[in-house]
Amino acid sequence: MTSPEIDALTQALARLPGLGPRSARRAVLHLMKKRETAMAPLLRALERVNEALAVCSICGNVDTTNPCGICADPRRDARLLCVVEEVSDLWALDRSHLFPGRFHVLGGRLSALEGVRPEDLAIDSLIARVAAGGIDEVVLAMNATLEGQTTAHYLAERLESYPIRLTQLAHGLPVGGELDYLDEGTLAQALRARRPVA
Amino acid sequence: MTSPEIDALTQALARLPGLGPRSARRAVLHLMKKRETAMAPLLRALERVNEALAVCSICGNVDTTNPCGICADPRRDARLLCVVEEVSDLWALDRSHLFPGRFHVLGGRLSALEGVRPEDLAIDSLIARVAAGGIDEVVLAMNATLEGQTTAHYLAERLESYPIRLTQLAHGLPVGGELDYLDEGTLAQALRARRPVA
Ligand SMILES: [Zn+2]
Ligand SMILES: [Zn+2]
Repeated sequence: MTSPEIDALTQALARLPGLGPRSARRAVLHLMKKRETAMAPLLRALERVNEALAVCSICGNVDTTNPCGICADPRRDARLLCVVEEVSDLWALDRSHLFPGRFHVLGGRLSALEGVRPEDLAIDSLIARVAAGGIDEVVLAMNATLEGQTTAHYLAERLESYPIRLTQLAHGLPVGGELDYLDEGTLAQALRARRPVA
Repeated sequence: MTSPEIDALTQALARLPGLGPRSARRAVLHLMKKRETAMAPLLRALERVNEALAVCSICGNVDTTNPCGICADPRRDARLLCVVEEVSDLWALDRSHLFPGRFHVLGGRLSALEGVRPEDLAIDSLIARVAAGGIDEVVLAMNATLEGQTTAHYLAERLESYPIRLTQLAHGLPVGGELDYLDEGTLAQALRARRPVA
């Protein structure tokens, strides 16, 4: 009995991760009741992010600038490169403030099951960054899943001829665990104990 | 390390009921990665609701038209009026499709503790609607809380001189329960067994 406009808003919110139809309805009602303090700021923020949204042409991060804030930050250590599967992993590591270097987002993981091959991931651009020089260490921060580890092994082979230190996160990660869901303590430990790829 | 625009969006989402900082971050990332299929529809829907947003001058519902879709619907039984505390209660009852009449939103409940007095609620406008005639039954659908029931008793006194049937929801409602959180089965039972106010 709600209007088509309200239904469309409820559906758009219900499709966000972590929300469902019920919480979306509550959110819509909240927005409508608090037009100035909830609706207006959300609308403004969405408009601004939508306008400025960019995928970083260096690392694959999503941000409101290109290059992204991390790639453009001169205080980050450009000799240290951390390779992750997804942007969410980059954000999780960045939030922890534990990694002072830069990132490279693969955009997924190798998967025979899902038919994801090396050419479907940002691997060539990773090799190009390493080949360009100036990088001392590449940290492979794949998820501790079978596919994540397969991807790490593949990258290790592709990178072994370059004069870099190749490391991976210590396996303090829970088996099957996704980086993005870990607490900072676990992440910190895994980073601290990172070890050379065998 | 995310940009101010992204931080503002995360904060606006994190303030919605049912979301927190963590799920807000995941939602923002999802929106940014799915610009066409998630960000654009949400932005459009928000813009439309924000433009059309109106509080119904008859019943107090929030909708994208005034009068609201319920008050303007000729198929709703105008002789049957259901009084609720909040718009969320109206939406919950409306979703159940169990109540064929119209609504009146008080905008809260009487509360000595919070200093909410009769003049702070939409009670005069309720009396005016009843006094105008054409209403056979008023259903008091307050929450089954102490304050809800105090409010119902107060309204019963204010309405007793009018030639209407005054009913309230059956107390199958769990004590302390909020209408908005009940499943449809419980709501259906409470509506079916509604009884005259003693
Ligand atoms: Zn970047
Ligand atoms: Zn209305």
